[in-house]
Amino acid sequence: MSGIHDIAILGASGYTGAELVRLIATHPRLRIAAMTADRKAGQTMGEVFPHLRHLELPRLGTIAAVDWAGIDLAFCALPHATTQEVVAKLPRDLKIVDLSADFRLRDPAVYEHWYGHPHLALDLQAEAVYGLTEFYRDEIRAARLVAGTGCNAATGMYGLLPLLRAGVIETDDIIIDLATGVSGAGRSPKEGMLHSEVSEGYAAYNVARHRHLAEFDQEFAKAAGRKVEVTFVPHLLPQNRGILATIYVRGEGEAIHRALAEAYANEPFMVVLPFGEAPATRHVRGSNLVHLGVIPDRRPGRVMVFSALDNLTKGSSGQALQNANLMLGLPETMGLLAAPLFP
Amino acid sequence: MSGIHDIAILGASGYTGAELVRLIATHPRLRIAAMTADRKAGQTMGEVFPHLRHLELPRLGTIAAVDWAGIDLAFCALPHATTQEVVAKLPRDLKIVDLSADFRLRDPAVYEHWYGHPHLALDLQAEAVYGLTEFYRDEIRAARLVAGTGCNAATGMYGLLPLLRAGVIETDDIIIDLATGVSGAGRSPKEGMLHSEVSEGYAAYNVARHRHLAEFDQEFAKAAGRKVEVTFVPHLLPQNRGILATIYVRGEGEAIHRALAEAYANEPFMVVLPFGEAPATRHVRGSNLVHLGVIPDRRPGRVMVFSALDNLTKGSSGQALQNANLMLGLPETMGLLAAPLFP
Amino acid sequence: MSGIHDIAILGASGYTGAELVRLIATHPRLRIAAMTADRKAGQTMGEVFPHLRHLELPRLGTIAAVDWAGIDLAFCALPHATTQEVVAKLPRDLKIVDLSADFRLRDPAVYEHWYGHPHLALDLQAEAVYGLTEFYRDEIRAARLVAGTGCNAATGMYGLLPLLRAGVIETDDIIIDLATGVSGAGRSPKEGMLHSEVSEGYAAYNVARHRHLAEFDQEFAKAAGRKVEVTFVPHLLPQNRGILATIYVRGEGEAIHRALAEAYANEPFMVVLPFGEAPATRHVRGSNLVHLGVIPDRRPGRVMVFSALDNLTKGSSGQALQNANLMLGLPETMGLLAAPLFP
Amino acid sequence: MSGIHDIAILGASGYTGAELVRLIATHPRLRIAAMTADRKAGQTMGEVFPHLRHLELPRLGTIAAVDWAGIDLAFCALPHATTQEVVAKLPRDLKIVDLSADFRLRDPAVYEHWYGHPHLALDLQAEAVYGLTEFYRDEIRAARLVAGTGCNAATGMYGLLPLLRAGVIETDDIIIDLATGVSGAGRSPKEGMLHSEVSEGYAAYNVARHRHLAEFDQEFAKAAGRKVEVTFVPHLLPQNRGILATIYVRGEGEAIHRALAEAYANEPFMVVLPFGEAPATRHVRGSNLVHLGVIPDRRPGRVMVFSALDNLTKGSSGQALQNANLMLGLPETMGLLAAPLFP
Repeated sequence: MSGIHDIAILGASGYTGAELVRLIATHPRLRIAAMTADRKAGQTMGEVFPHLRHLELPRLGTIAAVDWAGIDLAFCALPHATTQEVVAKLPRDLKIVDLSADFRLRDPAVYEHWYGHPHLALDLQAEAVYGLTEFYRDEIRAARLVAGTGCNAATGMYGLLPLLRAGVIETDDIIIDLATGVSGAGRSPKEGMLHSEVSEGYAAYNVARHRHLAEFDQEFAKAAGRKVEVTFVPHLLPQNRGILATIYVRGEGEAIHRALAEAYANEPFMVVLPFGEAPATRHVRGSNLVHLGVIPDRRPGRVMVFSALDNLTKGSSGQALQNANLMLGLPETMGLLAAPLFP
Repeated sequence: MSGIHDIAILGASGYTGAELVRLIATHPRLRIAAMTADRKAGQTMGEVFPHLRHLELPRLGTIAAVDWAGIDLAFCALPHATTQEVVAKLPRDLKIVDLSADFRLRDPAVYEHWYGHPHLALDLQAEAVYGLTEFYRDEIRAARLVAGTGCNAATGMYGLLPLLRAGVIETDDIIIDLATGVSGAGRSPKEGMLHSEVSEGYAAYNVARHRHLAEFDQEFAKAAGRKVEVTFVPHLLPQNRGILATIYVRGEGEAIHRALAEAYANEPFMVVLPFGEAPATRHVRGSNLVHLGVIPDRRPGRVMVFSALDNLTKGSSGQALQNANLMLGLPETMGLLAAPLFP
Repeated sequence: MSGIHDIAILGASGYTGAELVRLIATHPRLRIAAMTADRKAGQTMGEVFPHLRHLELPRLGTIAAVDWAGIDLAFCALPHATTQEVVAKLPRDLKIVDLSADFRLRDPAVYEHWYGHPHLALDLQAEAVYGLTEFYRDEIRAARLVAGTGCNAATGMYGLLPLLRAGVIETDDIIIDLATGVSGAGRSPKEGMLHSEVSEGYAAYNVARHRHLAEFDQEFAKAAGRKVEVTFVPHLLPQNRGILATIYVRGEGEAIHRALAEAYANEPFMVVLPFGEAPATRHVRGSNLVHLGVIPDRRPGRVMVFSALDNLTKGSSGQALQNANLMLGLPETMGLLAAPLFP
Repeated sequence: MSGIHDIAILGASGYTGAELVRLIATHPRLRIAAMTADRKAGQTMGEVFPHLRHLELPRLGTIAAVDWAGIDLAFCALPHATTQEVVAKLPRDLKIVDLSADFRLRDPAVYEHWYGHPHLALDLQAEAVYGLTEFYRDEIRAARLVAGTGCNAATGMYGLLPLLRAGVIETDDIIIDLATGVSGAGRSPKEGMLHSEVSEGYAAYNVARHRHLAEFDQEFAKAAGRKVEVTFVPHLLPQNRGILATIYVRGEGEAIHRALAEAYANEPFMVVLPFGEAPATRHVRGSNLVHLGVIPDRRPGRVMVFSALDNLTKGSSGQALQNANLMLGLPETMGLLAAPLFP
């Protein structure tokens, strides 16, 4: 079967929307049939993102104007809260890969606690499958609605989930120190994201209260079979793409390395470095790869686990495409095998 | 005489305001008695600019609330158009160093052409002295109102004015190719100034229609004694501070170098490099210095002149302080002798 | 026919070598059969370039140890001078795409003038075809040895060759002001290329004596049918990839725009922007695209032409692959259609 | 008394040497009488560091050629190992502020363990005072030889020493996660420090085996009165200046904040932010300030302490000047009060 699937991108004027277009541009089985951006409706994608001006793409329109007939799947890259209202009105037979935070959390009370308002589409929330492909592959394949993970959350989980499942680390002494590029903050103008404010500087933000903690709590408890509360301190890097999590755990180094290597042995995008080596964000840039490393501390029983990925690719739009491939019955890696861009 | 002069900074919440505070913080004869930022009134400067949090400074207030008694001089770092309205209402015996574009142009028609509206304070416009210190030193010393130059304009003029005065270049074939850091665009959030939009990229902007052309036209005509129209193409650099003008002229290389060297022989901030050497923005960062270079083309009669300065220091706030020193009868270089920060 | 061509990469441990691997990694018809790096022989490519560690690649070896049987084409990414010695010893039936400066210049005297020593393989120099694909496509298709262009040279030529051919600009008043990212300087450690020396700064280098002038002279004369000497001032940008040429010419703006648009109307990688728009290096990053723009000066008869490309892709390794496709009878764009990476 | 002290800078051609010149350039009581750089002897400082070309400075010479008569103090910015040989031959009445690692460690066995060879000047090692000014002020004032601290070491110690002294944290569960700019790696060309290798990327290095661990062990044991072994993971940032330590400790947040605030209440360069705020490296750039923050984790009993400084200023050359001021009987803050450069 070599048919073409028509897809739509809702919220195409942000960085994750543009990244979807970049990836799908060379995907042999997907065709972008509709793109929306309510505030930029009427513009071409090339006007909004000149690096895509050479592509033939549908003009940006409103969500209301999309003709859903013939569209198999929609990527939804809208802000959270808006998303649940929009998705609730989409055709019920449309497959949806959502990139927002709206459907990540299983427990409505937890959602309300972290996002400050009640969820408005509880049925969808109940239906959604968490989009961490390597851990929910079968559910994603069968899902209608997949909730893309937080990009920081994915980075931390890739380093920790196999360890919690294998029981090779203590669960009450986990620290996730994380550094992320600025593109995760999106394209809306904010003083704190200006070049003058970001370059040549480094600082922590949302210390101990970042919303991706909710995802950690949910998924780590599930993996460990008990409540797991981690410490999480994200920092902002003077770079555009890339997240590195430096994770401090207690356990035995080689056992930890083995648990990661075994968990990811057959995964096409997961690269576990030789024991003792540390990954770098620059070596996964623009790719769907995750590089993982394990280095023991000088103090016995303490180990550092490192996890690096590109927040816009494996952390959001690449993950979304990987999940869409599964949902559409296509090869999982299709359109995602480009090597990282370095330097 | 070692008295202290009280000064005010109007519009202290932008980058030029912060740069003024940075410079004045170690100035032995100036005291910041009032600071305003209408939208941030009530905040401390340390809240708005954490790098200044160690300084004892007056709280940010409104312009209306400033007590002008005892204040000798005001730096006005407000947006253009707003500025002329504000300055018109300030006490008539107050010395003013303005950093906006409002008082740079002598001809009201030229102002209206480039800024799109009639000037609202023609008497002040007539009174103002153009703030390019090395060329208007005596007028500035006697002035009540000094109009700071455009930062791009200053960079180009430092390379060209001595050549036009000395008559060593042709006046109808001058090209100013210029590259500037992003801090000149200010701290207001704009999509185009986000780190993700600026870093790892380079492009021209406002090609052939940048407003600093008006200053070039005015000052070059005055220096040459005839109309001089230059070509001017500014570019945006992926860096915060620094402007480099690469100026293409026709003339004889060594004569051009000599004209620059002679014009600036006694200038404390002007450094003319040996013939054949090119300056770099990184070598003037944070200082009030201008580095100038002259290199002949392989084609006889064609010469490149290079001019580099820090847009926030010599290009605006450092220039402003240099002029304030003159207006207050203080040593011209006071508070301005810090060496550049490299790397 | 869907056979696989085995290729070799000589000098794979530099940035252009790594870029070739990145591009070929997803090329459906090429297989990397041998890779050399004399000083790193024995290492894996993943050790030298960790971003390529997920790929199955031959181990780095010496040139002497390559088994040429079955290899159809070699990419040669060695330093100049070394290259002519190496290529002279390669099998005579091997197709070669060279990325060095060794075979770009037709005239041995010109080579000796610019590179400071006599050429050691005059027969190869005579045989080589200049690799600017869009202008030498037929010759390249039939060539055994193709000489990749200088990356700065290509950027300037894409903006100027159609204009010289069409006769729409004056030939004695052309200025190429160019800014380039640092990756063009290669991976050998040099003080001037350290992050501390490059970031947050901008300066001209090799003013009026850059070796790519020799390529300009050769190709512009050919296109114009007469000697053309341009002024050329390159600058170093605080970024890794990307070159922008800002070209100052005399002519009529719309005629110039039309000449470019017509010349590149059917070219898959050449994008001529609407009249009045300026391209940016960030919008071609990592791609084989060239973005071109034309903006008239305020002074009639003067026009700025802008040309932007990625020095490692279209400026060297992407160009090399495009030429290799032609030489091997493959579709010219194969493996080169990935969209730019932004941000 | 307002006499001038003549000083020498040995090893002036590195970044710490240049930073010393930058700071001393506006110091009212110090005069640079001699500067050495063995491999660049004969050159001017302006040739080696063009940002200092406007200063009148002695030409670079060899150490052997320095006339020590009249020189009160030498800053020694040479590589480790070389340093101990050089200092052993200097006049015995010369005050010395050393910036290398050679005299930081009290225990010769510890030195040999971390630096891989026996110490060659044990008497000097015994004599040297550790240069962390705020904790050794009296000893420094009386010292002849002061050993500047490691820049990473200083950053971590400023956050932890008051807590260990006050006994408000557990001593066996301390993690120092640190990120540093590249200028700390010096000006010698290394592949890993090229702009192309550093920018747009982030990674850990020397994990769990960085030599500054030796300083932590020494000073933390002294402060706590018992052996303290910390976990230490440094990372390299894509920026030139600045270090941020994110320190994970166990204790009570407000008590920890209070301990820091009290310890540094009268310190001119130590700024303790309000409880709950995080510092940023960009807000101390180019200054001798340290910004400290304390934020409690969501898990009771766990706290994050943040410490930010400029590695070239407070982390090395600024610290050195602060110590020199003490040793010469000058006001401690002299020449060090310039505000940070932002942006």
